Amino acid sequence: MFIRNCWYVVAWDHEIPADGLFARTVIGEPLLLYRTEGGEVVVLEDRCCHRLAPLSAGRKEGDCVRCGYHGLKFDASGACVEIPGLASVPPKARVRRYPVAVKNHWVFAWMGDPALADTATLPDNFSCGDPDWHYKPGYLHYDTPWALIADNLLDFSHLSYVHEKTLGGTPAIAQARPTIEKVPRGVRVSRHVADVPPPPFYLRMKPFDGNIDRHFIYDFLLPATLLMHSGGRPTGTTASDGPPSVQLHSCQALTPETENSTHYFFMQGVPTAQGGAGLVDNVFASLVQAFNEDRDMITAQARIIAMKPDAPMLPLAMDSALIQFRRIVDEALRAEA
Amino acid sequence: MFIRNCWYVVAWDHEIPADGLFARTVIGEPLLLYRTEGGEVVVLEDRCCHRLAPLSAGRKEGDCVRCGYHGLKFDASGACVEIPGLASVPPKARVRRYPVAVKNHWVFAWMGDPALADTATLPDNFSCGDPDWHYKPGYLHYDTPWALIADNLLDFSHLSYVHEKTLGGTPAIAQARPTIEKVPRGVRVSRHVADVPPPPFYLRMKPFDGNIDRHFIYDFLLPATLLMHSGGRPTGTTASDGPPSVQLHSCQALTPETENSTHYFFMQGVPTAQGGAGLVDNVFASLVQAFNEDRDMITAQARIIAMKPDAPMLPLAMDSALIQFRRIVDEALRAEA
Amino acid sequence: MFIRNCWYVVAWDHEIPADGLFARTVIGEPLLLYRTEGGEVVVLEDRCCHRLAPLSAGRKEGDCVRCGYHGLKFDASGACVEIPGLASVPPKARVRRYPVAVKNHWVFAWMGDPALADTATLPDNFSCGDPDWHYKPGYLHYDTPWALIADNLLDFSHLSYVHEKTLGGTPAIAQARPTIEKVPRGVRVSRHVADVPPPPFYLRMKPFDGNIDRHFIYDFLLPATLLMHSGGRPTGTTASDGPPSVQLHSCQALTPETENSTHYFFMQGVPTAQGGAGLVDNVFASLVQAFNEDRDMITAQARIIAMKPDAPMLPLAMDSALIQFRRIVDEALRAEA
Repeated sequence: MFIRNCWYVVAWDHEIPADGLFARTVIGEPLLLYRTEGGEVVVLEDRCCHRLAPLSAGRKEGDCVRCGYHGLKFDASGACVEIPGLASVPPKARVRRYPVAVKNHWVFAWMGDPALADTATLPDNFSCGDPDWHYKPGYLHYDTPWALIADNLLDFSHLSYVHEKTLGGTPAIAQARPTIEKVPRGVRVSRHVADVPPPPFYLRMKPFDGNIDRHFIYDFLLPATLLMHSGGRPTGTTASDGPPSVQLHSCQALTPETENSTHYFFMQGVPTAQGGAGLVDNVFASLVQAFNEDRDMITAQARIIAMKPDAPMLPLAMDSALIQFRRIVDEALRAEA
Repeated sequence: MFIRNCWYVVAWDHEIPADGLFARTVIGEPLLLYRTEGGEVVVLEDRCCHRLAPLSAGRKEGDCVRCGYHGLKFDASGACVEIPGLASVPPKARVRRYPVAVKNHWVFAWMGDPALADTATLPDNFSCGDPDWHYKPGYLHYDTPWALIADNLLDFSHLSYVHEKTLGGTPAIAQARPTIEKVPRGVRVSRHVADVPPPPFYLRMKPFDGNIDRHFIYDFLLPATLLMHSGGRPTGTTASDGPPSVQLHSCQALTPETENSTHYFFMQGVPTAQGGAGLVDNVFASLVQAFNEDRDMITAQARIIAMKPDAPMLPLAMDSALIQFRRIVDEALRAEA
Repeated sequence: MFIRNCWYVVAWDHEIPADGLFARTVIGEPLLLYRTEGGEVVVLEDRCCHRLAPLSAGRKEGDCVRCGYHGLKFDASGACVEIPGLASVPPKARVRRYPVAVKNHWVFAWMGDPALADTATLPDNFSCGDPDWHYKPGYLHYDTPWALIADNLLDFSHLSYVHEKTLGGTPAIAQARPTIEKVPRGVRVSRHVADVPPPPFYLRMKPFDGNIDRHFIYDFLLPATLLMHSGGRPTGTTASDGPPSVQLHSCQALTPETENSTHYFFMQGVPTAQGGAGLVDNVFASLVQAFNEDRDMITAQARIIAMKPDAPMLPLAMDSALIQFRRIVDEALRAEA
C-alpha cells in the first residue's frame, strides 16, 4: 500500500539520456523515462498494452517509443500511433502517461490521479539547483521497505551510534531532545547539540580548536523527503559573531521501488563560499560512507523483522517524530482509500 | 496445469549417455533417463519410492539403476528388484515408468496415462533424421512459462523487431498477413513476404543481387512443437524457374520444466545439396543469436507480467494464431480434467 | 514446529570470542552469544526491544551489550540498563535471556520455559572433553530440514552406498540388521557387521591383514544428538584377545536453524593411546569428506521432496529406528502443545 497522489522523485535528471530509454520501477509499477527531441522528460508505463513487454526494451523514435517486440509505436502522451500491419489503431491501444515535473535536477512523477497533480506540493530542494551551492548527486538502492529508512531519518539519535566514527562522534546527539513541530505535509525536527567535539567530517572542512555547538533543522515531508539545514559554530560564539563555521543543506528523497525495496536519492550541499570541488568530494565521500552504515543497519533490522513480522516495537521518547510522521502517512493512505 | 496425455520432447538422444544417468525435470516431475545395455532409452520417475532420493544420484547397474542412498535396485520397468538386507521386495516398491519414443533423434516421454500413449501422434520431425538434411541440435533453458514462448513462435511479426538485425531485416514481415488454418492437434501458419531484402543470415548462405520473396509455412502442434518450411527466391522468379534459392526446415519443441521454466529443443535443417558443414555452423550460429534475442525479450516480458499478473493484454489481428492455439490447449486441458 | 523445552547445541565454545559478539539463528530465533568479563557465556535474543535491530550489530561493553542503532544498553540478564537521552528505563525494556550450559566444549541453550531447564538432560558428550580422547571439532551448514539429517543418522544402511568409498566399503553394513532399543529420550541402535574388509579410513589408522568385525553402537537422543561408540577388530579375535584394534567415539548434534536449514556440530574422538595429531587430522578429513557425501545426498533428496511435498515414503525394515525416533519427537511436540 503506497500513497499515490503525490510527487515521487523517480530520477536525477542526469540519469535520463538525451537519446535513449531509461527504466525504473516505482511503487511496484514499471516506468519508462525518456526525453523528447526538445529535451522534455516523458514518463510512461513501461508495459506495452499489447503483450506486456517493457517498452524500455524497444527504441526511441523522435518523440515516440517503439516496442521492441511487435513494433507498436507510442507517442509522448502514451497513445499508440502505429501498429505494423494494421491500417488503423484501436483507441484502447495506449499506455499510461504519468505527469512529470523537473525541479532543481530532481525528476518527479505523479503516481496517482493526473487531475490532482499540483506542482505547488513539490518540495523546496533549492540547494540542488542554486549556483551558490555545490554538491554531488547520490543514489543508493535498498533491499528494505522504505518506512524503515524514513524511521532512521526521523530520529537522529542514531548518529551517535551508527555514525559514531563518521557523522556523529558523540553520544550527546542522542542525549539532546529535539523539538518536533507539525508543518504542512510533514514534521519539522530541530535539534541543537551544545559543546561537543566536531565530527570527523567537519574537521576535514574547517579547523576547530575546541568544541562546537551543532544544529540539525529539517522538514520531513510526504511522501518521504528530507530537507535539512545543519552546521556548527565554536561553542561560545553566537549569531552576532557571524554565520556558523560550517553550513550545509541536504535534500534526500526515498521512493519505494516495491514493498521491500527502495530508491534513495540524496545530496549534501555546501555553500560555494565555503570551499571548492575538493571539499564537495570530501563531503560526498563522508556521506556515502555514513549512508552505507545506515544501509547495513537497516538491512540487518529488516532481516530480523522478517523472521518475526509481528514482533512488537517498544515506543520511546526518541520515536516521537517518526510516530507522528507514520500517522501522517496513515492519514494520507486513508484519504485515498 | 499441464496437458499430460501427449508426447513431450525430453532430450536430444545424444544427451543420454551410453553408460550413466541423466536427469531432467518435465512438467514439474523429476525424470531419470538412461539406456539399457541394448541402447534402449528408459525414462523412470527420478524419485526413489523409499525415502524420495533422486535415483539419478545413484548408479546404473546393467539394465537397472541402484539408488545411491540405501541401495534399492530398480529394473527398466520401474520395479524394485532388490532391497539390501531384505529377503523379499514388497510389491509396492516401484517407481513410475514413462512410455518412451525416439524419433529422428528426439527422445519423447508420454507423461499421462500409459494406456493412451500413441506413437501416431508423434510430430513429423523428419529433417532431424534425414541424410539429405544437415543441422546442429540446439537447446536453450528459459526461466519463463512455456506459453509465452509459444506465443512468440505463433506470431512471426516479431521477426521485424526482435530479430531486425538477424532473421528479420525488414518491417515487411510484420506487415504481411499470414493465413491461419486449423490442422489436427494445432494450427498451420503460412506467411509470404514479397520483394524484401534478404535477411543478413540468408546473405551468408547465398549471394543475392536484389530483393527476394520469402515464405514461412509451419505447423504448431500440441503440446508445443513447431515444424517449419521456410526460404526465399529472387523476386520475379517462380517455381517454374526452379526451387527456392534458400530452403530450410526447422523443428522446435517447447517442454515445460515447471510452471515458470521451460526446455527449448530446436534445429534448423539445411538441405545437404545446399552447402556443407560450414554453412550449417553458420546457420546454427545465426539461430542461436536470434533465439537469445527472443529469450531476452520474453524474459523481460515475463518480469513485467509478474509485477501485475492480472494486467490485461490487448488482442490484435496479429494474435490470431496464438489465440487459436491457446484455445486448442484449453480444450485439451478440459478434456483431461 | 520445534521442540522448545530442551537443550540445543548452539555453538562450539571456541566459536564465541572472549571479546566480541557472535550471532546464530536457532529454531527460527535470532540469538546473540557473548562472554562476560568472567568468561561466562551469555545467550540473549538478538533483537533489540526498541526497533528490532540485531544487538549483534552493536558492541560489547563489559558484561553488557549496547545496540548499535540507538544505543540501548542491556545487561547479561537481558534487562535494558540505559537508554540514551532518557533518565529512566521502562521495565518493559528488555530482551529475552536463554538459560545456557557449557559441557565438554558444547554450548547449549534452553529454548523453552526457563523454569524447566534441567542440566540433567544434557547429553553425555564425554569424549569432547576428556584428555584421553583427541579430536577436531566440526561444523557443517545444511539447507535442508533437520529431520532428513536425523533420518540419515538413524539408518546406517546408507554407509554401504553413500559412503562406499569412505566410511563404508561394503554392502554388508546395509545387510546387517541392527537391534533397536528404547532409552530415555531416544533410541539405542546397535549394529554388528562380521567379517568385512576394513573401510578405507580404518586402513589409514591401522594395518590389517584381513577382514574385520565392525560395530556401531549409538544413542540418538532428543532433540537430535548422536553419541556413538564404533570400531573394529580382526575377524576371529574376541574381547579376550584385548580391546578392538580401532576404537572411536563420536558426538554429533543437529540444531534447526529454520524450518529448512540446520546446524550440524560433530566430532569423531580417537583415544590418545591410539595415535597422535596426524591420526586425528586424518580421521577428521575422512569424516568431513563423508559428511559432505551425506549433505549432497540429503540436499538432493530435499530438492525432490520440495517438488511434491506430499509424495509418500515407503517404510521398510531399515527405517525402524528413525520411525521410532520420529514418534518420540511427535510425543514431545504434543506434550508441549
